[in-house]
Amino acid sequence: MTEPIRIESNSLREFVANVLQKSFVPESDSLLAADVLCTADEWGIRSHGVSRLRSYYEMLQNGRIKAIAKPRIVRDNPTVAVIDGDNGLGMVVAAAASKIAFDRGASMGAAWVSVFNSNHFGIAGYYVVKGLERQLIGIAMTNTPAVVSQFLGTERMLGTNPIAVAFPAGKEPAVVIDMATSAVSLGVVENALREGTMLPPGVIASATGTWSTDPHDFVNNGSLLPLGSNSLGSAHKGYCLTALIDIFCGPLSGAQWGPFVSAFRTPATNSFRQVGKGIGHLFGALSVGAFTEIDTYHERIDDWIRTMRSSPPIVGNPPLVIPGDPERNAAQLNRALGIPLDQTVALDLERLARETGTRAVCPL
Amino acid sequence: MTEPIRIESNSLREFVANVLQKSFVPESDSLLAADVLCTADEWGIRSHGVSRLRSYYEMLQNGRIKAIAKPRIVRDNPTVAVIDGDNGLGMVVAAAASKIAFDRGASMGAAWVSVFNSNHFGIAGYYVVKGLERQLIGIAMTNTPAVVSQFLGTERMLGTNPIAVAFPAGKEPAVVIDMATSAVSLGVVENALREGTMLPPGVIASATGTWSTDPHDFVNNGSLLPLGSNSLGSAHKGYCLTALIDIFCGPLSGAQWGPFVSAFRTPATNSFRQVGKGIGHLFGALSVGAFTEIDTYHERIDDWIRTMRSSPPIVGNPPLVIPGDPERNAAQLNRALGIPLDQTVALDLERLARETGTRAVCPL
Repeated sequence: MTEPIRIESNSLREFVANVLQKSFVPESDSLLAADVLCTADEWGIRSHGVSRLRSYYEMLQNGRIKAIAKPRIVRDNPTVAVIDGDNGLGMVVAAAASKIAFDRGASMGAAWVSVFNSNHFGIAGYYVVKGLERQLIGIAMTNTPAVVSQFLGTERMLGTNPIAVAFPAGKEPAVVIDMATSAVSLGVVENALREGTMLPPGVIASATGTWSTDPHDFVNNGSLLPLGSNSLGSAHKGYCLTALIDIFCGPLSGAQWGPFVSAFRTPATNSFRQVGKGIGHLFGALSVGAFTEIDTYHERIDDWIRTMRSSPPIVGNPPLVIPGDPERNAAQLNRALGIPLDQTVALDLERLARETGTRAVCPL
Repeated sequence: MTEPIRIESNSLREFVANVLQKSFVPESDSLLAADVLCTADEWGIRSHGVSRLRSYYEMLQNGRIKAIAKPRIVRDNPTVAVIDGDNGLGMVVAAAASKIAFDRGASMGAAWVSVFNSNHFGIAGYYVVKGLERQLIGIAMTNTPAVVSQFLGTERMLGTNPIAVAFPAGKEPAVVIDMATSAVSLGVVENALREGTMLPPGVIASATGTWSTDPHDFVNNGSLLPLGSNSLGSAHKGYCLTALIDIFCGPLSGAQWGPFVSAFRTPATNSFRQVGKGIGHLFGALSVGAFTEIDTYHERIDDWIRTMRSSPPIVGNPPLVIPGDPERNAAQLNRALGIPLDQTVALDLERLARETGTRAVCPL
């Protein structure tokens, strides 16, 4: 792998927003979507960053996503709201929906907002960290196109269905969990394909459900394995987690679910049945102050964080981390040095600049 | 392994309740606790069933658990309540707390109840299925004594911290998830020790953090591995899940957390610091009716269940299941044939009968 090209953070955001505006996304929405994508790259989650800009752009161009969407609340009660995303940009719909969950969580103590008729919202962690300053524990989930097999299954039946949960802290930085519920995310397989490398065992299966290390077996109708990889590693638990998120985001919200969630780039391999509308999300908020005095909680969580960080690692490993540390460390570095882009992604953005007549961004 | 001894379901419940009553547990509480333990055995989760009766009995006898406890709400608002379990039997405290979560969830749309100063509550799934008839999605979590290492860690820092979530269904049976968030539950290691067998790789580590298949390495200050087993299998995700539940049940509720959660049977290997009170739980309830028409949801979830069950398994495997099927199938069998007990457990119950002057139960 060659050295990444680094782009100054604000310039890249501006560029992404400009490209989206060429597809008639309103300015404020475009800035928001750009922030979600660039934050993913800053956090080191490059599979969910600006490398996906072309996909979003093309879906906007061919009308698969509405540039000017009007998400609206279709079911409303104090602790639960349901939002029709109007087939808008997932990042814009998700930001609005999570904001409602946080506002209600802050006033009611707890709240949930479910969303249907939305699209891919980028990284789940982006939304939950927005509640931290308000002392809200945020939860975000989404279902995603089916690439994961069931436990002992052979077909692509469930998404990598990520979940993010953020816990505020006091003097220590927050605990931020953001994880796909499959053994690995699709990005890992995409990287292996791009770089011509093999995958470790326990990550993908061929079309018959047997383990493979060749990423091409995934392409040929194979699947990602659930977290846990097989029965010895308790892959039924990974299946449970992925199913849990799919039910919250699909059957409960009114979105498509399981094998019927629309594909991001590749055509769906399963027969496509209309069981709901678009992709679904669920956002939750719990107000720390509803459970305990905030100062008391801060002392406890800071103690928890320091305790977890101070336990000795396996010899030869760096100090142990808490969830959120790797992304925070990556962000600190990337904000200082510029957002790192693979050569192929940088070239693709350059082409996109030419195609859309957007001023390209210069590497640092 | 020898054939299990089968005991008629109601007789075993009565026996367990009688033993608890000998330690001054009030009759209704004893019946409830007996139901939780026997349900675990019926569901096939024998590590959490009547095999633990002696531990509960001894903890009641030596005053580590209060027989007559008065759990009370110490923080109260419409969607969130916090309960001091008064060091009572975990099953009794958890049943009361989850009932409050369900009542509030039914009236408010969503609710959470956190608990501190409680004890081991048996199987998490027991509580969530109680909300199904009321069309409530139930969530139950608890922290447990530290036997799991952090990702890349060496010490026992977190519990096996189970989570249960139950989704009501229409004509199909409910989707019921109940899983420890470690690679395997402690019961798997206990079974291997009892039966003198080895463990599969990726389940436990020795005290240095290196993988082992010898269950004695766990006893000698080793640890259970997080779900995912290692970095290739994404064990950082298992660590995130276990941490998530520990924070909800500990720092948020006011219970002990991480390495400081009191041990069930074996003495804690970590130095024991007072950071909270007892074991903590969190119960959540979401009213399906707050999200959508119940009939509509029933149609969707039934469709989801049938779709997941009808996908082809890996050749040579039985048809695919949904979460909850294995426990439901086991319960059907065990209710008909009698609750199966290992010889050692049956002998221990006989001894317990003699020690307590309780009439023993006869095998079928």
